[in-house]
Amino acid sequence: MELLTTNNVWMMICTALVFFMHLGFAFLEIGLTRQKNTINILFKNIFIITVGLLLYYIAGFNLMYPGFAEDSAGIFDFAGFGLDLEAGADATYNEGYTYWTDFLFQGMFAATAATIVSGAVAERMKIGPFMIFTVFYVGLVYPIAGSWKWGGGFLEEMGFHDFAGSTLVHSVGGWAALVAVWLLGSRIGKFKDGKPQAIPGHNIPLATAGVLILWLGWFGFNGGSVLSADPETTSRVLVTTCLAAAAGGVVSAFVSLLKYKNLDLTMFLNGILGGLVGITASADVTTPGSAIIIGAIAGVLIVFAVAFIDAIKLDDPVGAIAVHLICGIWGTLAVGIFSTNPDHSFLIQLVGVGYYAVFCVVSTFIILFLLKKTVGIRVSEREELEGLDAHEHGMDAYPDFRLNEH
Amino acid sequence: MELLTTNNVWMMICTALVFFMHLGFAFLEIGLTRQKNTINILFKNIFIITVGLLLYYIAGFNLMYPGFAEDSAGIFDFAGFGLDLEAGADATYNEGYTYWTDFLFQGMFAATAATIVSGAVAERMKIGPFMIFTVFYVGLVYPIAGSWKWGGGFLEEMGFHDFAGSTLVHSVGGWAALVAVWLLGSRIGKFKDGKPQAIPGHNIPLATAGVLILWLGWFGFNGGSVLSADPETTSRVLVTTCLAAAAGGVVSAFVSLLKYKNLDLTMFLNGILGGLVGITASADVTTPGSAIIIGAIAGVLIVFAVAFIDAIKLDDPVGAIAVHLICGIWGTLAVGIFSTNPDHSFLIQLVGVGYYAVFCVVSTFIILFLLKKTVGIRVSEREELEGLDAHEHGMDAYPDFRLNEH
Amino acid sequence: MELLTTNNVWMMICTALVFFMHLGFAFLEIGLTRQKNTINILFKNIFIITVGLLLYYIAGFNLMYPGFAEDSAGIFDFAGFGLDLEAGADATYNEGYTYWTDFLFQGMFAATAATIVSGAVAERMKIGPFMIFTVFYVGLVYPIAGSWKWGGGFLEEMGFHDFAGSTLVHSVGGWAALVAVWLLGSRIGKFKDGKPQAIPGHNIPLATAGVLILWLGWFGFNGGSVLSADPETTSRVLVTTCLAAAAGGVVSAFVSLLKYKNLDLTMFLNGILGGLVGITASADVTTPGSAIIIGAIAGVLIVFAVAFIDAIKLDDPVGAIAVHLICGIWGTLAVGIFSTNPDHSFLIQLVGVGYYAVFCVVSTFIILFLLKKTVGIRVSEREELEGLDAHEHGMDAYPDFRLNEH
Repeated sequence: MELLTTNNVWMMICTALVFFMHLGFAFLEIGLTRQKNTINILFKNIFIITVGLLLYYIAGFNLMYPGFAEDSAGIFDFAGFGLDLEAGADATYNEGYTYWTDFLFQGMFAATAATIVSGAVAERMKIGPFMIFTVFYVGLVYPIAGSWKWGGGFLEEMGFHDFAGSTLVHSVGGWAALVAVWLLGSRIGKFKDGKPQAIPGHNIPLATAGVLILWLGWFGFNGGSVLSADPETTSRVLVTTCLAAAAGGVVSAFVSLLKYKNLDLTMFLNGILGGLVGITASADVTTPGSAIIIGAIAGVLIVFAVAFIDAIKLDDPVGAIAVHLICGIWGTLAVGIFSTNPDHSFLIQLVGVGYYAVFCVVSTFIILFLLKKTVGIRVSEREELEGLDAHEHGMDAYPDFRLNEH
Repeated sequence: MELLTTNNVWMMICTALVFFMHLGFAFLEIGLTRQKNTINILFKNIFIITVGLLLYYIAGFNLMYPGFAEDSAGIFDFAGFGLDLEAGADATYNEGYTYWTDFLFQGMFAATAATIVSGAVAERMKIGPFMIFTVFYVGLVYPIAGSWKWGGGFLEEMGFHDFAGSTLVHSVGGWAALVAVWLLGSRIGKFKDGKPQAIPGHNIPLATAGVLILWLGWFGFNGGSVLSADPETTSRVLVTTCLAAAAGGVVSAFVSLLKYKNLDLTMFLNGILGGLVGITASADVTTPGSAIIIGAIAGVLIVFAVAFIDAIKLDDPVGAIAVHLICGIWGTLAVGIFSTNPDHSFLIQLVGVGYYAVFCVVSTFIILFLLKKTVGIRVSEREELEGLDAHEHGMDAYPDFRLNEH
Repeated sequence: MELLTTNNVWMMICTALVFFMHLGFAFLEIGLTRQKNTINILFKNIFIITVGLLLYYIAGFNLMYPGFAEDSAGIFDFAGFGLDLEAGADATYNEGYTYWTDFLFQGMFAATAATIVSGAVAERMKIGPFMIFTVFYVGLVYPIAGSWKWGGGFLEEMGFHDFAGSTLVHSVGGWAALVAVWLLGSRIGKFKDGKPQAIPGHNIPLATAGVLILWLGWFGFNGGSVLSADPETTSRVLVTTCLAAAAGGVVSAFVSLLKYKNLDLTMFLNGILGGLVGITASADVTTPGSAIIIGAIAGVLIVFAVAFIDAIKLDDPVGAIAVHLICGIWGTLAVGIFSTNPDHSFLIQLVGVGYYAVFCVVSTFIILFLLKKTVGIRVSEREELEGLDAHEHGMDAYPDFRLNEH
């Protein structure tokens, strides 16, 4: 009983920290984009966390943890709508936490995948179709994909390891971001004569705050993924997580200094996020030294991935594809290289990445292609130039901001 | 001993989260008001949390938890100034937490009531009288009112239920806000030819951050009100709290879309807060399904309450009356409708609401009326037009903010 | 086992809170300085936390906790590079927490000292030399200084008491800030005809948020310094910490009202920080009443120290010397006056302050003097006037910020 209480306290705190990541994402996304689209991004983020929780209550939780039958294929099952009130009242549901805590912790994760997409499609996607996409992606695609591993499905059976979601959360969001960015096309002015143009954001202090809040949230994202307060594992996970974040940031800053002769704060920040995403699959099975290597490689990848995505003419305003997809894949494969558990296999990790790639790309394509052909997914040129805030929301982000005389 | 330690850890974390709500309130209030009054609002918020804690140390805690005698009326008692150092050192004070933790957790609550008023009177109330009002309201009115229920007074005896303070905190602040707004009058320019005019705030990203920080803080506000880390109750409370918040937000956004044909971020945010306030009285005695209904109704109420307050020519710049008073009353009554505990009665809930209404309205009226007739409570027209920051504090909020050439 | 789990949970949460203080410092420092140097300050803060953690992993932790031999002088020892993976896996390393948690909690502290310097040298120090200074100060000076007391060195033997680091963290940072400010000289325009000129910051809301985040972080900074979740001590520490913060703020605001006839928000905020720094050495050995006195005296000191530092023509843009050095010394000496432990001695506290003064002043002088004579530590006049953001980073903090038509 004492141990259940302690475990449950830890899981509730981690739940709160993962919830708080939504402020981190919001700050990061608005900070790196233009002022005229700020309300729109905030609206999307608030929509995702509220609707995401409700959808997870209605069906998501029971899609993701359906309790696959022994002889099932472990691909799809559904345990019914709503929560099990009997189980909710049962504190012995799990030695690590209660049924209620389990639902809420997993629910906070569910919304994250759509948030990743929100940043990538910023400044040009219609709000209505984005909301529809969110409902399907958070309500169906994410929990079904999650069930394959965390819900005890076929990838779990196969021995695939993804501790806290380099693939199950970050790549799942990243693949959708990739497809969405491709279907949407680039923002007006992003490419001139075939060359990518910098479109600076409007509030770098908030973007920086966003990254620090996300790092804080990762204490809960990875720490809570232990699913108990087991002292050895939780504290080891926090150490590997923080060291990978630090290494990712420092290496990104250093590589971009070499490449661009500039002490680039944005690259430093994306490197930290890359390190965090990279360590997420293996935080429980690496040494601190390996965590630093994993983070450092993520830091290198970020710099080149951002440049590569520009080069192939994809327009990702906040670097979501580089951070969440590229480093998510890297982190998942890194399990096969650095894990201290000899059962983990590079090949199985690769297979897992492949399954998620296919499922997420196809799902996203179907949803967004249908939306594109029916209601359209992109705002008009005029709306894009004048800003989504004025046209979609009739609001300014800073309506009464004034300058002082000097 | 192990269980006490765990309970106490949970209560300390919840204390920290409730403390952090003061940043949430500050961001929300400055975000929704004009830039020229930002320093004034921040000063008030910092004043409330610091002076509030000191007053609670001096007398508030012992006014609120006086240990009513068996045969007393349970209306007023006082256990003496300062803290009981002997009890402080006694870890067996309570099975859920230590005496020190009890004081600090309750102290963080005390300041909240005045903070609610701060937002409602923003942009036109003199700082000196506001500080005097805060001292009396936080130092006397709030703890005496609280003693009736949480201190074991007559409403506790009567069977009134208010889990974490829909009435004891939010309505207590809300009633004061209502009286203050009425005595102060509306801001210059709020009503033209009898019609309410929108006076936009200056920083919607900070207002949004404020709501997310408040939601985070509610993990501690409601989670800590269990007064132990009991796994079943705490985790159930977090689930009902988060689902009500989500439902409140989504429904507010939807209703205001129907009513105003606009995807209104501010209404979305106020709906979340309304859902949180609404679930606060019953978070421990409702099912998740009921929590969603309670939150959803709060979301509807918010949209119409904001319009109604405008219609009766009350000027509440941040929507504090709609969020804290209307949804606070709703949440308290909802206990009588949705509680899983058959002892709870709608009638007794209604009686409780009535007692607090009378006490808070009368107390606030006496304090503010005396201040109005002596030192005055409203700044001069010139001060209001030029901003309270320049006149009351001699400071700008963004003194060195500059724009770049484009 | 249950108790270890609970203790470890508390320590992990405190680690997260201390980590989050870096956002507090970042917001405070950018808020109180001019917009043109914002990116530079953010870059430094991100550099400090990432590089600080890596350095602490490489050598700092083993410099600070070298396990001094019985008959050693307790001045310097080194337990080798990297972490002890065997100990890491050993959950019985310490009854209060695991080896991993110990490393991470202490690592978060290490970066703080350099952050204090960052604010003091803002707006005029070259980024390269600052990074070099950080590496030596965080990597060598801080852990060696820390080993004297927390690592079981000669000051621990002597009976010196510094609970959570009024001296070991705050004065260690403060002495470096003092020397750095002196070697750097004042910003252009700070002194005109020998009189100090106010150079207002650019974002007071973020500075205020920074102080509230720092206060939140202090729940972990002081609460975690108990090194277990012992209910009596942890909860007492939170009470003394919060009361000192409140008293420091209120007294600073009141004294500055008397002195300058102004309700000064910045002084209120610095008073809170002064109270927090002041209580940090004695939070575990004072009564709440003494905590209020310690905080109140810190509040008085802040107002006069800020004026005094101006008067002797030192230019400290954020008040770091007043807050961290002056109140750090005060807090350390206050142990000798207010401690409930009769073994604590004012004289030994004074001796401890002296040792740290000499070591930090000399170390900082050597590092910065060498840098000054070789690469130079100050930016050119043109860079200073145009801002470090443009010259050191090629970035604006708010590149797309626009004003609306009114």
